[in-house]
Amino acid sequence: MYRCSSERMSDKIKTFSEYGNAGHGGVTRYTLSAADAFARKEFIKRMESIGAIIETDDVANMYATIPGTDPSSKRIVMASHTDSVMNGGNYDGILGVMSAMEVLETVVEQNIPHKHPLTAMIWTNEEGSLYPPAMMGSGIVCYDYLPEDIRGKFKLEDMLQSKSIVDFKTTFGEVLKQSEFKGAKANRLSPDKYLYMFETHIEQGPILEDHKKDIGIVDCVLGMFNYRLKFFGQTTHAGTFPMPKRKDAFFAAAQAIVYLHNEIDKLGYPELVYTTGEVVCHPGIHTCVPDFFDFSFDCRHEDPQVLEKVLSIVKACAEKVWAGCSCSVEKAWNRDTVYWDEKLVRYSEDAAKELDISYQIIHSGAGHDAQFAAYMIPTTMIFVQSKDGLSHCEQEYSSPQNCTAGATVMLNAVLKADCAD
Amino acid sequence: MYRCSSERMSDKIKTFSEYGNAGHGGVTRYTLSAADAFARKEFIKRMESIGAIIETDDVANMYATIPGTDPSSKRIVMASHTDSVMNGGNYDGILGVMSAMEVLETVVEQNIPHKHPLTAMIWTNEEGSLYPPAMMGSGIVCYDYLPEDIRGKFKLEDMLQSKSIVDFKTTFGEVLKQSEFKGAKANRLSPDKYLYMFETHIEQGPILEDHKKDIGIVDCVLGMFNYRLKFFGQTTHAGTFPMPKRKDAFFAAAQAIVYLHNEIDKLGYPELVYTTGEVVCHPGIHTCVPDFFDFSFDCRHEDPQVLEKVLSIVKACAEKVWAGCSCSVEKAWNRDTVYWDEKLVRYSEDAAKELDISYQIIHSGAGHDAQFAAYMIPTTMIFVQSKDGLSHCEQEYSSPQNCTAGATVMLNAVLKADCAD
Repeated sequence: MYRCSSERMSDKIKTFSEYGNAGHGGVTRYTLSAADAFARKEFIKRMESIGAIIETDDVANMYATIPGTDPSSKRIVMASHTDSVMNGGNYDGILGVMSAMEVLETVVEQNIPHKHPLTAMIWTNEEGSLYPPAMMGSGIVCYDYLPEDIRGKFKLEDMLQSKSIVDFKTTFGEVLKQSEFKGAKANRLSPDKYLYMFETHIEQGPILEDHKKDIGIVDCVLGMFNYRLKFFGQTTHAGTFPMPKRKDAFFAAAQAIVYLHNEIDKLGYPELVYTTGEVVCHPGIHTCVPDFFDFSFDCRHEDPQVLEKVLSIVKACAEKVWAGCSCSVEKAWNRDTVYWDEKLVRYSEDAAKELDISYQIIHSGAGHDAQFAAYMIPTTMIFVQSKDGLSHCEQEYSSPQNCTAGATVMLNAVLKADCAD
Repeated sequence: MYRCSSERMSDKIKTFSEYGNAGHGGVTRYTLSAADAFARKEFIKRMESIGAIIETDDVANMYATIPGTDPSSKRIVMASHTDSVMNGGNYDGILGVMSAMEVLETVVEQNIPHKHPLTAMIWTNEEGSLYPPAMMGSGIVCYDYLPEDIRGKFKLEDMLQSKSIVDFKTTFGEVLKQSEFKGAKANRLSPDKYLYMFETHIEQGPILEDHKKDIGIVDCVLGMFNYRLKFFGQTTHAGTFPMPKRKDAFFAAAQAIVYLHNEIDKLGYPELVYTTGEVVCHPGIHTCVPDFFDFSFDCRHEDPQVLEKVLSIVKACAEKVWAGCSCSVEKAWNRDTVYWDEKLVRYSEDAAKELDISYQIIHSGAGHDAQFAAYMIPTTMIFVQSKDGLSHCEQEYSSPQNCTAGATVMLNAVLKADCAD
């Protein structure tokens, strides 16, 4: 068994945390921004220093490859992203890139024999924080392999026209063109050049920490649905309209939220998660009764039958009158559970076992580029414990020891895969 | 008894509804906008045509005055506003200005004898829709007479710096300077020049319609308090964080809304109104559990002891933990009930009775410029029935008959006041 370097990993964490440093312990590093360019150049510098060949494709996905002993064999790629949400942390995405780099650095430093070329890769615009949608780079590259209803979201011409959510003007296509990182379409990740994909990522949840496990061997990305619940009332003046005649859309939504929690919790599925994170309130004036309230309902579970049960509770909201308001329930999107390649999952688990690194099998509740890649080539993921389960915020933290453990498990799993094929 | 002209009133309604016509039956007429300038010029044109003298003060409040038989006597003023909310209706504010014009037109046309000069007046920026706060023009003019805690909001220098809520740049002071309506501070409404103020306004509620009354004789503006309830949780990823460990600030707020309705409704005050119209949800992303939710709580009732009871329920929310979230309850402002001048209320009631116009005594739940004027000179208000109680929206409607009835009651009440002093 081989082990990665905790010192080198710590140095990378420290270095990359400076690119987009927002001054409060985290980063804002939108895709292809100046901060992201610094991170990508650091990647190039470190990868060239170990003799890797750098390639970029037509949407600035970046690939650093070291040769294997069989020049005709396909590559094994380890990938994640360098971009972050606004005021994000120092681990989401970038840890997977740093882990991939660490694997290559360890292989070169320790002169570890391997047959397949090994690639460390950066996916462009995973967060979609400035130019929606999320997982844009992988959505474009995996387009032909994605299920029909997902694919529609990722047409290249639409992606190039995606407008900045800040100035509503600048397009992703413009920043891509102006960046130094636009390359050839021929360099894209594809099944004829790539054999397997691995992605290491922070857990973004508290399960590993609660169970005192350093590493999660991920078996799937949970299926989910995302709906909007809309409540339609009547706006009236706060001071002049008697309570019994009101149709208050916010009160209606509040009743529905409480109802949904009660009903769904009765189902008794401890692994089920659901979230109402986005709201619209109209007219949003303290002297007006709201006539419209809309919230998102995101629900995730491995078992489609469980999702179906929750969905029927959600849909039934449209049958009721809430505080005098009507309700409509509209589908935004859904996705099926994506299972990782069983063989690759086993290699990761075996590696953790043999290395005596504490681990557990875990589902991924969050979406990742790996789930799109999985439609194209066998893919898997490894999770690293997140302190307090926090993510997409500046408090995000994983210890250098755990980060190194994640890279070490990935290194040995990749080597198992390399041997086997 | 004298009566105003329904034809002339209808013509004014039709004409003024064109100034800021937003194409769906209502108007957007921000203060001192081009649309407002049209309305003000129409006011000048019509008032000059009956021989009124036009004056404007330093914040563009406008006064049109016809002389009485005693040149040394103080003026009786009838006032409201020409500005509207975004996509407002054709009656809120402007009806009071049209009613004041109608009174002067009737007095001149029918050559009605009166001792005091009579003034029709426009208050600037009552809505505060573009340049907050609401009731700016009356707040500035009545500044020295307002209670300490209200006054603080209306310092002239602060008002001139009030920024457009659309471009966050243009100040009220700039548009005032560029307008054609800035006059001399000496022209301001003041107790040494003005004896009484009357304001006619639509009810903005459904009480008169429900009781089949054309007119409301208003006795007070309800006391109120406005608080913010803030809920503090922890943002986590929608897919990765188990439900029992979540601290969801939106769920917390929803529970609190339902709790507040239950507890307050138990008090059993049918005239009590409370409204939660403005919300903030952070981070407001469908994949994130909200860590912060904030809503406004506006509560109105005539009796301060009732308000006190409600406030203690609201404040007690801060003692509880809601869905794992802490809560803070913060005062935005409050105001005591403002009672109209008893004598003027009686004149209005007597006028309605003698004219055989159906009426009832009613409170005003909404705030009006008249309530600031009331700290300076004896003041009263007359309400006109609102269809379905709707206001601050394009469906706002009062029949020409009822609008004329309101002006007729004001005319005769003003003449009673004119005789008595």
